[in-house]
Amino acid sequence: MTMDLIREQVLELGRTARRVQRHLNTAPHERRQHALREGARALRARSAELLEANAVDVSQAREGDRTSAFLDRLRLDRDRIEAMAGGLEAIADRPDPLGRVDQSWARDDGLAFERVRVPLGVLAVVFESRPNVAADAAGLAVKSGNAAILRGGTESRRSVEVILEAIAGGLEAAGLPRESVQAVPVQDRAAVGHLLQLTDHVDLLIPRGGRSLVERVQSESRVPVLGHLMGINHTYVHADADPAMAREVVVNAKMRRPGICGATETLLLDEDGVGRHLPGLVEALREAGCRVRGDARARAVVAGLEEAQAADWDTEWLDAVIGVRVVNGVDEALEHIAAHGTGHTEAIVTEDAVAAERFLSEVDAAIVLHNASTQFADGGEFGFGAEIGIATGRIHARGPVGAEHLTSYKYRVRGSGHVRP
Amino acid sequence: MTMDLIREQVLELGRTARRVQRHLNTAPHERRQHALREGARALRARSAELLEANAVDVSQAREGDRTSAFLDRLRLDRDRIEAMAGGLEAIADRPDPLGRVDQSWARDDGLAFERVRVPLGVLAVVFESRPNVAADAAGLAVKSGNAAILRGGTESRRSVEVILEAIAGGLEAAGLPRESVQAVPVQDRAAVGHLLQLTDHVDLLIPRGGRSLVERVQSESRVPVLGHLMGINHTYVHADADPAMAREVVVNAKMRRPGICGATETLLLDEDGVGRHLPGLVEALREAGCRVRGDARARAVVAGLEEAQAADWDTEWLDAVIGVRVVNGVDEALEHIAAHGTGHTEAIVTEDAVAAERFLSEVDAAIVLHNASTQFADGGEFGFGAEIGIATGRIHARGPVGAEHLTSYKYRVRGSGHVRP
Repeated sequence: MTMDLIREQVLELGRTARRVQRHLNTAPHERRQHALREGARALRARSAELLEANAVDVSQAREGDRTSAFLDRLRLDRDRIEAMAGGLEAIADRPDPLGRVDQSWARDDGLAFERVRVPLGVLAVVFESRPNVAADAAGLAVKSGNAAILRGGTESRRSVEVILEAIAGGLEAAGLPRESVQAVPVQDRAAVGHLLQLTDHVDLLIPRGGRSLVERVQSESRVPVLGHLMGINHTYVHADADPAMAREVVVNAKMRRPGICGATETLLLDEDGVGRHLPGLVEALREAGCRVRGDARARAVVAGLEEAQAADWDTEWLDAVIGVRVVNGVDEALEHIAAHGTGHTEAIVTEDAVAAERFLSEVDAAIVLHNASTQFADGGEFGFGAEIGIATGRIHARGPVGAEHLTSYKYRVRGSGHVRP
Repeated sequence: MTMDLIREQVLELGRTARRVQRHLNTAPHERRQHALREGARALRARSAELLEANAVDVSQAREGDRTSAFLDRLRLDRDRIEAMAGGLEAIADRPDPLGRVDQSWARDDGLAFERVRVPLGVLAVVFESRPNVAADAAGLAVKSGNAAILRGGTESRRSVEVILEAIAGGLEAAGLPRESVQAVPVQDRAAVGHLLQLTDHVDLLIPRGGRSLVERVQSESRVPVLGHLMGINHTYVHADADPAMAREVVVNAKMRRPGICGATETLLLDEDGVGRHLPGLVEALREAGCRVRGDARARAVVAGLEEAQAADWDTEWLDAVIGVRVVNGVDEALEHIAAHGTGHTEAIVTEDAVAAERFLSEVDAAIVLHNASTQFADGGEFGFGAEIGIATGRIHARGPVGAEHLTSYKYRVRGSGHVRP
């Protein structure tokens, strides 16, 4: 296909999305809910077809010499299909993110103002191998009255096609345009490049995948990007932490699932409490299968720790490895986090309420926790029903992004012939 | 100056801004208020010096063959200086946009969530000839706990320097870093280009000026942009409008100040009401000094109207000219606005509550008004104290942008040893 033809096809997706979005803008919640529930039903009804399509995707990817982790992300089974369908229903069950008046006031002269939530417009979601991202993204877009253009990895294209057919069926059953959710029909990598330039037709671009995808999108896109970069998250065990709680929280924060973005990557430990806390922490981490790398002060207390390198503090392991750094109280912990954190998720474990409040107020991150595991950094755990990712930027939305964060607002102003002096 | 040196200087501004922003993050409201009030005081105290600097700016710009409108925007007098100082005080008087908990909830297991407003981080404001933008932007940044990097037009540089000296004095008096608000010290145009690439050091870029500036920034910037493009605003006089009210509102919407972005550019008029409304509207507009251009149906009713061209509907006149288009009811009015509006400000004049509510709900614009002038599109009129502009995008903030819109949020989560299952 020529470059011009690809560009034209992508542009046409944008035009269509912009056009149908007007219908979504005013579609009542019951219809959006109906579309989601019918989409879930259709997904279950098509599960045999979906498993077949997915088997072809997986076998082709296997020939393509992909890692087993990649193949695992790509693979669907009955449970994963049920999870997608259940996810659509959970999204349907949540309150309507649209139409809510979140501010209202009136002037002395009677002019009355309301700020009301409206859809963002057109979302584009670029993702990699996981087919379920298509269902989540489509579901959140429908819920929030946005049109969506989805572009998945080539390897998952047959699976994604069936998923989007099911969702299109749900939209039609609810009397909404099936083009509300569109897939980019061309596999050529250049299509993504064109999508990133569609400033008139796409309002927000959401990359969902590994760091290289996000970095490419962030550096090339002319459309605003809601991106997730790294989660170099810290758990800070303060001198006044309860030792048993610290062990439980730290092991969970690192080892529950070391590969997710909310996992803790570095353990900060007060010098005052090193003797009391570190041996137990290291033992518990090792028991859970975690390698522990310590700085000089940590290694002086617990023998046999690997030696942490300076680069460790800026490493997102996403693996069963943790760095331990000993700090000299809250100030030094805050300094370390300011220098090495990525604004994702940070936690303190302490019984000292003053230290806890200071940490919660001074640490600049999307999510700050006291006496809780960083692995709670998740839209589902926050009660958002589903998430399209965790935003590590500061613009528009921060932290887990659910349907309510895919909205904008407008002002409705009511007068009785008011003119401005 | 070499390119590398300019880049390095701009980068250094970014590093400094990022560093001082941590202090602002936690500066109590009283201190930020104190800085603003002391800044206002210093501005008044330095007014002779400022007038002198401004006189040099103006005389150099005059040699540069600038238009009189340009020179007027550049020129300061005692009233304008007082308006700047009063603006800083008005910003100080508004409630604190930071620290407010705007959502909170707890899970059944006791894990408690709060969403709290925090500063965005580092703002960069690129503006043109008006020196007062420096005071507004600096004031809003200080209020919202953001560090700011300002880059004004070369022509206003001496005036801006004095204004920022006054504000730096206010910051120091309040014990806040004077580098909280920095000006780009190099005049080279390349400096703006470097500023637009500072993704690690600048969180939001705000262009404040004419369309070519905004377009340049939007097309080149790698930093997220909060921009104002065009305001092609409509006032729709519905068949059931009160004729006297329609005249008053339309004349105000167009002619109070034809050059502001909230001015109405096109009048839509119901076919049903053309005979009743149009002659009076044209007479009132002409009396106010406005040229009226009509489509065929309008010209059939009122003789001597200029002939509107197709391009008129996409023209932002910013002048004493209005286009009149006759439409066949609410649907056609909504169609016209969807096709030609720029998402800025749209108004309906009608006594019919159903038509009004339909217009308010279906028109997709930052501001929609019923029986009120589009010229209310202004942060001051909305009660925001001051504004840094009106955002016509849909991301982050929409409509008038005041201090509260220059914030982000973070989640504070409090547990008692909670781990994720």
